Amino acid sequence: MTEPLSLWNHTSIRQAILDFVAEVTDEDGPNYVPPAERIATFDNDGTLWCEKPTYFQFLFAIKRLKEMAEADSGLLEQLAYKAAASGDMDYFASLYPGNAEELMQLVFDTHAGMPQAEFETLAADFLSNARHPRFGVPLKQLTYKPMIELIRYLEAHDFKVFIASAGGMSFVRPVAEEIYGIPRERVIGSNVSFETRMTEDGPVLHRKRGLVEPVDDGPGKPVNIELHIGRKPILACGNADGDIHMLWYSETSQYESLQLALHHDDAEREYAYEGASAANVFALAQERGWNVISMAKDWKEVF
Amino acid sequence: MTEPLSLWNHTSIRQAILDFVAEVTDEDGPNYVPPAERIATFDNDGTLWCEKPTYFQFLFAIKRLKEMAEADSGLLEQLAYKAAASGDMDYFASLYPGNAEELMQLVFDTHAGMPQAEFETLAADFLSNARHPRFGVPLKQLTYKPMIELIRYLEAHDFKVFIASAGGMSFVRPVAEEIYGIPRERVIGSNVSFETRMTEDGPVLHRKRGLVEPVDDGPGKPVNIELHIGRKPILACGNADGDIHMLWYSETSQYESLQLALHHDDAEREYAYEGASAANVFALAQERGWNVISMAKDWKEVF
Repeated sequence: MTEPLSLWNHTSIRQAILDFVAEVTDEDGPNYVPPAERIATFDNDGTLWCEKPTYFQFLFAIKRLKEMAEADSGLLEQLAYKAAASGDMDYFASLYPGNAEELMQLVFDTHAGMPQAEFETLAADFLSNARHPRFGVPLKQLTYKPMIELIRYLEAHDFKVFIASAGGMSFVRPVAEEIYGIPRERVIGSNVSFETRMTEDGPVLHRKRGLVEPVDDGPGKPVNIELHIGRKPILACGNADGDIHMLWYSETSQYESLQLALHHDDAEREYAYEGASAANVFALAQERGWNVISMAKDWKEVF
Repeated sequence: MTEPLSLWNHTSIRQAILDFVAEVTDEDGPNYVPPAERIATFDNDGTLWCEKPTYFQFLFAIKRLKEMAEADSGLLEQLAYKAAASGDMDYFASLYPGNAEELMQLVFDTHAGMPQAEFETLAADFLSNARHPRFGVPLKQLTYKPMIELIRYLEAHDFKVFIASAGGMSFVRPVAEEIYGIPRERVIGSNVSFETRMTEDGPVLHRKRGLVEPVDDGPGKPVNIELHIGRKPILACGNADGDIHMLWYSETSQYESLQLALHHDDAEREYAYEGASAANVFALAQERGWNVISMAKDWKEVF
């Protein structure tokens, strides 16, 4: 029999996960949770796949801005297009997190009006072909193996595992089944709205301009979890301040719950960073007893 | 071995369903559909449960208006509260479908600001205790047995069955598991947005004022199906004009698909009606080859 969580070192984190799953699945124990209520939610960027040097979806949007500027040089008068055309990544970095809204708008509006099916094809192509500047492999290969092993382990114990990404729902869905084994209907994220246009061939969905409120980040995560799942997660996993509400929300479950926060402290195998986007989550983890995963110490492998 | 769809008479509709399911599950056949893509969507009001003399959620909202008017007589100056307090159902009937937006607004705003958990408790209590004016049983008992049998039959063939209700998502979810065997995360509907309020006990979800666009009706159904499922249904079932876009959308699947429209032609066991809310769906069914279920002829039992 294969050892469970074989890609995790024998540290307290691995033990905490094993103990939690044993506890909530023990029908005779005091903390048994019925399968229907075994909901787990995972953030995506920096939790399931790499988010450096920047979010993959930003790279996708910048590529699109560049293509649009090549097709219409008038667009170069706008800063974002100019930066994209000249490869000025610092411009985009300067927008986040201070101007996150503006950046998100840019990311989503670059594909406004497009048929939804076409957008998904572009996203899948990008994630399959664009290569990571440091690791040299297609972006979609930069998923964390121990996390995927954890997802399979949870599913084997009748958990329903959802992704709750601050990034675009439709950006992740086209590859989620292939790279995570998570079906499309279990991928939650930020999104634009769609409109149904009637054609001779029936209704066709197009992407609209503008984001659906709330963005699936921070206080928006519990909101979107309610919309898509309708139950509180008993296990939540994130890596940044945008996951704080989700982690804390899972604590308010009537059942035993487990919170996991991934710390990127592995400059050798991946990256080491905290920075503005994770300024509070680890302090809060300390305060509230959430489990902090050390990439360097707790994982045998990364990718 | 029990006969499948035993509550359905041996008519062409039952045969069409059996043939379709046999076809899409035949691994060696030309129309095989992988389990992950076997999505079925059912409307709720008038498709899975009774919608007469009016939508159950309207009764719920009217009860609330009445309670609010009893607590604050100043509200009686507004027509809706006055009508609710005096039991003037004609007033509410006059709003639909002409002023559907106003009515929906009324339905949703009556619980604005309330914690989401409290709303769900109220909804479950109402559906469990309020009795139907004609049948005298609690509203939640007025589900169509042949439809529930069909849902189980589809699930037994690895379909994922979702509810796509024009009514409130959170109104149906608290009872969906009990009365339909459908888990909360597979109930899609119209909804208000929520907000996360931070308290000493952690984040708490409250209902906001105003509907999330689009309402899950007509062209909004494919939009919400995309948001919650991300795949086209290969089987869609409805009963009114608000289901036309969903039925047609399922036709645009790359796979074989089946459309079912329930005709309420059974004044004896339930009701016989078409009226303003189903003026076009049956003509279109004729034109496009959708299957029309006759409640009177195709079902052995109703409730």
